[in-house]
Amino acid sequence: MGMRITRLGDLARVVGVELCGDPDLEIDGVGTLENARRGQISFLSNAKYRRFLSETQASAVILSATDAAHCSTAKLVSDNPYLTYARVASHLLPEVQQMAGCHPSAVVASTADIHPTAWVGACSVIGERVKVDAGVYIGPGSVVENDCRIGKASRLVAKVTLCRETRIGERCLLHPGTVIGADGFGLANDAGRWEKVPQLGRAILGDDVEIGANTTVDRGALEDTVLENGVKLDNLIQVGHNVQIGAHTAMAAACAIAGSTKIGRYCTIGGLTGLAGHLTIGDNVHFSGASQVTRSFPDPGYYSGNLPAMENNDWRKAIARIRQLDGMAKRFKALEKRIADEKVSKKS
Amino acid sequence: MGMRITRLGDLARVVGVELCGDPDLEIDGVGTLENARRGQISFLSNAKYRRFLSETQASAVILSATDAAHCSTAKLVSDNPYLTYARVASHLLPEVQQMAGCHPSAVVASTADIHPTAWVGACSVIGERVKVDAGVYIGPGSVVENDCRIGKASRLVAKVTLCRETRIGERCLLHPGTVIGADGFGLANDAGRWEKVPQLGRAILGDDVEIGANTTVDRGALEDTVLENGVKLDNLIQVGHNVQIGAHTAMAAACAIAGSTKIGRYCTIGGLTGLAGHLTIGDNVHFSGASQVTRSFPDPGYYSGNLPAMENNDWRKAIARIRQLDGMAKRFKALEKRIADEKVSKKS
Amino acid sequence: MGMRITRLGDLARVVGVELCGDPDLEIDGVGTLENARRGQISFLSNAKYRRFLSETQASAVILSATDAAHCSTAKLVSDNPYLTYARVASHLLPEVQQMAGCHPSAVVASTADIHPTAWVGACSVIGERVKVDAGVYIGPGSVVENDCRIGKASRLVAKVTLCRETRIGERCLLHPGTVIGADGFGLANDAGRWEKVPQLGRAILGDDVEIGANTTVDRGALEDTVLENGVKLDNLIQVGHNVQIGAHTAMAAACAIAGSTKIGRYCTIGGLTGLAGHLTIGDNVHFSGASQVTRSFPDPGYYSGNLPAMENNDWRKAIARIRQLDGMAKRFKALEKRIADEKVSKKS
Repeated sequence: MGMRITRLGDLARVVGVELCGDPDLEIDGVGTLENARRGQISFLSNAKYRRFLSETQASAVILSATDAAHCSTAKLVSDNPYLTYARVASHLLPEVQQMAGCHPSAVVASTADIHPTAWVGACSVIGERVKVDAGVYIGPGSVVENDCRIGKASRLVAKVTLCRETRIGERCLLHPGTVIGADGFGLANDAGRWEKVPQLGRAILGDDVEIGANTTVDRGALEDTVLENGVKLDNLIQVGHNVQIGAHTAMAAACAIAGSTKIGRYCTIGGLTGLAGHLTIGDNVHFSGASQVTRSFPDPGYYSGNLPAMENNDWRKAIARIRQLDGMAKRFKALEKRIADEKVSKKS
Repeated sequence: MGMRITRLGDLARVVGVELCGDPDLEIDGVGTLENARRGQISFLSNAKYRRFLSETQASAVILSATDAAHCSTAKLVSDNPYLTYARVASHLLPEVQQMAGCHPSAVVASTADIHPTAWVGACSVIGERVKVDAGVYIGPGSVVENDCRIGKASRLVAKVTLCRETRIGERCLLHPGTVIGADGFGLANDAGRWEKVPQLGRAILGDDVEIGANTTVDRGALEDTVLENGVKLDNLIQVGHNVQIGAHTAMAAACAIAGSTKIGRYCTIGGLTGLAGHLTIGDNVHFSGASQVTRSFPDPGYYSGNLPAMENNDWRKAIARIRQLDGMAKRFKALEKRIADEKVSKKS
Repeated sequence: MGMRITRLGDLARVVGVELCGDPDLEIDGVGTLENARRGQISFLSNAKYRRFLSETQASAVILSATDAAHCSTAKLVSDNPYLTYARVASHLLPEVQQMAGCHPSAVVASTADIHPTAWVGACSVIGERVKVDAGVYIGPGSVVENDCRIGKASRLVAKVTLCRETRIGERCLLHPGTVIGADGFGLANDAGRWEKVPQLGRAILGDDVEIGANTTVDRGALEDTVLENGVKLDNLIQVGHNVQIGAHTAMAAACAIAGSTKIGRYCTIGGLTGLAGHLTIGDNVHFSGASQVTRSFPDPGYYSGNLPAMENNDWRKAIARIRQLDGMAKRFKALEKRIADEKVSKKS
């Protein structure tokens, strides 16, 4: 993708960091330390890549003051080089001309209220009484059911489904295949057979929420499923009915959150993590990938629970021993006791 | 969503439970014990919420005879309050006017047989020789490939894909993004390279099956993949080729069932559970969430297999010890033997 | 599905294996040993099904020389019966008449370059400057964003999304609901809040790649996400940004690969496996299902990491013991030392 050629001094000013080097240097793109070419700006935030610093072909590098000493190119010096890089790259992106109106192939209900600066893409279907705010982009092949609302400048990339009554805040970004507001998994059992429990709540997303491809967020059963401002979900995540996710919590791919669990703010949850239903997870809780969360964790901290992969023979032995563990522990206790008793009997 | 105002006596009669209180009380909605307002009916089925009973603002509560003694509102007394609630809520839902016909933007093959009482939504595509029975609803953006059949009153909410020859029973409910009948993962290896094995079976769903958002059910390789009557699948589940799932089995989100596994009737399977291929799971088998099922479980029972998340330091120690477990077990056995030998030698 | 009636001798010749039996025998379909009827050809590749060999009603069986001795039907004798079966079944499939052109309901940008032998299905949307090669099939409801390229004879079954700049090689097969090239999960943290890191790389698929239903492959952050020739992904898999997957590697359903991990060639990865980010997995590495891969595995081999499901009471005990394991190990060490010391003191 072509980027906007920008002077390095202007970049430093825009993102608010210190410049070391020629402010008139023209930057025309970004690249990794290893593969950047002249004209591009790179960054160093992961120590693993420091070895590429001395030989980078980048014209400028974003890095910490400590690393800056070891870098001979032009520099942007930042306390948070990755954040600075994100802002620099965003600034270099070409402006996209936002379209306005509805593609002729879109099917828009007569009662829908589409702001004149919003866009409804080809083959999208917009239901009754939907309200679409200024600057919204609804990509091709999307379905927005009756009574949804989409806040200012939000973007449904393509093939997004919003089920009836869903609320999307401002500046949200929903990737292809996401389904927001489908029925939760509510079933009552009648002597073995399942009967559907009507799912009457809504799915409500705050502002600045990002939802990954093919992720699903169910509507509430009675009350609402709520994702607060700044929540970021990766791809293929399942969020059950009535779940609440606090502001600025981020979750990596393939997690599954069962119904009615409440997750606090500023949490990070590794991929493939499962949370059982009706739990309470506090603020600033961090789960490693593939953790299985079966109780509440109200306190901040780092928690884990996976069994890391190992050589197959070692794994077989470990599993066999885990199965014997209870018996072994009992035998060990007995042995400890016997030895203690012997000592006592010797003493006496 | 507005609900149909209904007299409490009528509700009791319709769902067949005992009424304690004024039969003329008008109910206009449902709510949780904690948040219901006057005019709404609530329910108590989970002991966790009993504490809200005394202060609920609900006009009526559905509960067991035991709990009824502690409740001062009008009551519907039921052996299964959650089931009764499901039926009450269903009854209160406003009747939806089912549309009939095909939206002008739908693309329907000339050989498709669409019942005059069925509806094909906007931007949906219906293939050759598809048969759609009475009262079926095909939501917007769906694709139904050649030779599929959809039974009476089934509902494809939106953006559902049925691949060629798929059979859907009556009163099924398929949520957005589900894909039924895609090719299974059939590959034959030729000296390292994979060759595709044609997937010739079908995917067959019985009556009253519900399939969650973005769930995938593959067609059979040679014979059919079969989900019997009343099977309920949550979101983001994968069902491999040739799998059979017995009647009234329910499965929570993000499970993956490998090919040719047979699951019995009345099973419940927790979220993120994996089942290896070619297994046999009996009737009334229950797996906790995140179980990894690597052998057959023919007998009814409760089975589990996850490692629950714990504080990160404890987890590091536990994993390190698991890796040492085989060595420790051997050393323990040796110690036991030595102590036994010493005892023998002392005695002798 | 009807198949092409073919003489057994012709089948043997086409797939290049030895025939034992009447070359004029007409084969009109395929079936399992257990359920094939007369006229069909079956195969034996899994020892588990050998018991059906003696009573099969199939007119011919594909099997190894060893098994051939125990089979009284006509036979195709092969070193790799499953591969031979795959080729026989492919040969018997009726030729599908490939359509050419664009369905009138498709929305195709004026700058898109669609080869005259390619097909764009109903309600599909093709962006600017997209290049679609000869014989490509784009199924109904697909979205191909700007600047994508699709190589010869590739097939997007239905409702596939290719995000901008995605490259698809030749003879690829993409199943419904796949999303290729969506933004990776790139976030920089600013005092608790997340800022988006622009995702500037592409998703690049080689030739003969198959992608399962609802699987997602993210675009690269700075460089490209690359799936080499012959990679096969099952359903509901997540491939993070910058991931590289080597040629002829196959991955079962519901895996999640975090960003920047490199996987070698000829690997097989069981379902529900998770790989952390920034790892290096060598060629010919095999992970069992539900492995959690938290370090690099550069060497070929078989690796595992799941905790198999067990009876619920056994599992409770095992988990409790795992939690006590560190303490028990310490007590055991102390006991060993004491006994060793006693021995020493007795000797002295």
